[in-house]
Amino acid sequence: MTYCVGLLLENGLVFMSDTRTNSGVDNLSVFQKMFSWTVPGERLITIMTAGNLATTQCLVSLLDERSKTPEDRDPSILKVSSMFQAAKLIGDTLREIILDTSPTGLSGDSSFSANIILGGQIKGGQQRLFLIYPEGNFIEASEDTPFFQSGETKYGRPILVRAFDRNMTFEDAVKLLMVSFDSTLKANLSVGLPLDLQIYERDSLTKGMEKRFESYDPYYLKISEGWSTALKEAQRSLPNFHFEV
Amino acid sequence: MTYCVGLLLENGLVFMSDTRTNSGVDNLSVFQKMFSWTVPGERLITIMTAGNLATTQCLVSLLDERSKTPEDRDPSILKVSSMFQAAKLIGDTLREIILDTSPTGLSGDSSFSANIILGGQIKGGQQRLFLIYPEGNFIEASEDTPFFQSGETKYGRPILVRAFDRNMTFEDAVKLLMVSFDSTLKANLSVGLPLDLQIYERDSLTKGMEKRFESYDPYYLKISEGWSTALKEAQRSLPNFHFEV
Repeated sequence: MTYCVGLLLENGLVFMSDTRTNSGVDNLSVFQKMFSWTVPGERLITIMTAGNLATTQCLVSLLDERSKTPEDRDPSILKVSSMFQAAKLIGDTLREIILDTSPTGLSGDSSFSANIILGGQIKGGQQRLFLIYPEGNFIEASEDTPFFQSGETKYGRPILVRAFDRNMTFEDAVKLLMVSFDSTLKANLSVGLPLDLQIYERDSLTKGMEKRFESYDPYYLKISEGWSTALKEAQRSLPNFHFEV
Repeated sequence: MTYCVGLLLENGLVFMSDTRTNSGVDNLSVFQKMFSWTVPGERLITIMTAGNLATTQCLVSLLDERSKTPEDRDPSILKVSSMFQAAKLIGDTLREIILDTSPTGLSGDSSFSANIILGGQIKGGQQRLFLIYPEGNFIEASEDTPFFQSGETKYGRPILVRAFDRNMTFEDAVKLLMVSFDSTLKANLSVGLPLDLQIYERDSLTKGMEKRFESYDPYYLKISEGWSTALKEAQRSLPNFHFEV
C-alpha cells in the first residue's frame, strides 16, 4: 500500500508521499513514489503514484523516455500545453500499460491497477491538481475539495478534513501532513518512512523545496511524540459524559 | 457498513454501535445492531453485529428462539456454561447461516458474511470480549489488545489507539467512543446515527446502563462541535515546521 496527499493551497501546491512498497508482509522495499519534470520558468509537473509498482515504474519510464528521445517526443510531458493535457497524457499512458499487462491471462495476487496524483503549473495557465484513475480519466481539485489522497487514505483523513484550510502557510501544511501521515504510519504497516515532501510555489514555474523525512528526522519525532500528548489533551478538554441518575 | 466497538476495561465492558444499514446509497435504514441476553445475577451476554443484515437478523432470531422454546433449548445462549461456550455457539450458528445461504447459487451485490463482537460474563467466570469471524472461529481481547472494532474501523482507530487506557472510567470511555464514532460519521456515509451504548459493570452479572444517542443529543452535539476545535488546537500546539534556509 501507499499513502500520498496533494494539497492545493492559495500559495501553491504541497505534495507528500511515503516510500514503502510491499508484496506480502515479508517483502518490504523503499521506492520513491514522487516524480517531477520541470523546465524552470516554463513548467513544473509532479506526480505521486499509488498501486502496482511495475505499472507505476513503467509509467514513469515511459513519460521520461518520451521526454528525452526527440524522435518519440510527441506527445511529451515536457511539451503538453496545459495541465489538462498533461493529465490526459498521463491517464492515457497509464491505461495503455494496464491494458497491455492485463490480457496476457497471467495475474498476480494483486491487480495491475494504479492511481496518480498530478499537480503543477504550465506557463499561461493556473496551478492545478488532478487525481487520475487507472481507466485514464481524472478529476480535478476545486475550492470545495482542495486536496487529494491516494492509497491508505482513511486513517489520516479525519485530521485533514477538520484542519485543512486553503489559506494556510506551507509550514502549517507540512505540520498538518506530518500528523496525517503519522496517524497512518501508526495504524498500517504497509505505509512506511521515509516520507518525501515537495513544495511548489504558485506561479514560480519551477521546482520548490524538497525534503526527505527519515525515521530519525528530529521534526518527525517531535510531531510523532507530541501528537499523542496533544490528542490526549484534546480528548481531555472535551466536556465529560455523565450518566443520568 | 457499520461501526461497532467493544472495550474491555478493568471496571467492565463498554459497547457502542451505530444503527445504519445500507444497500446502496439510496436505501438507508435504521436497524439495531446490539442485542443482549441476561439472567440477572447469573449472566449477561451482549453481541454487536456487522455485515449482511439478513444473516445477522437470522443469527439473533435463532439465538433468541433457541433461548425461548424449551424443546429446542440445547444448546442455548442462556444455558452455556462459559463465555467461551457462548462464543462457540454464536460462531457455529453464524457459520451455519452463511453456509445455508451461500450454496443456493444466488448471490447479492454483497456477500452474506458477518462479524460479531461478543462480550459479557457468566457466573463463575471472568468478563470476556470476543471477535467472531464468519467462519465461526474467534479471537479474544487481552491486556495487549483490549478492544475490538468491526465494520468501518479505520477512521476512528487512531484516537482509540492513542487514548485508550484499560483503567479509564466508564465516563471517559464513553467520551472516547463518541470521538471515535464522530470521526467515522464525518467521513463515511454508511455509518449513521443514532448510536447505541451499553455498559456492563464487572461482576454485576446483569445489564447495566443503556442509552441511545440521537442526532440531536446535546452531548453528541457538544462532542462533535468541540472535537473540531480541540483537534485544531492540538494541531496548533505542535511544534512548527521550518524550512532550512
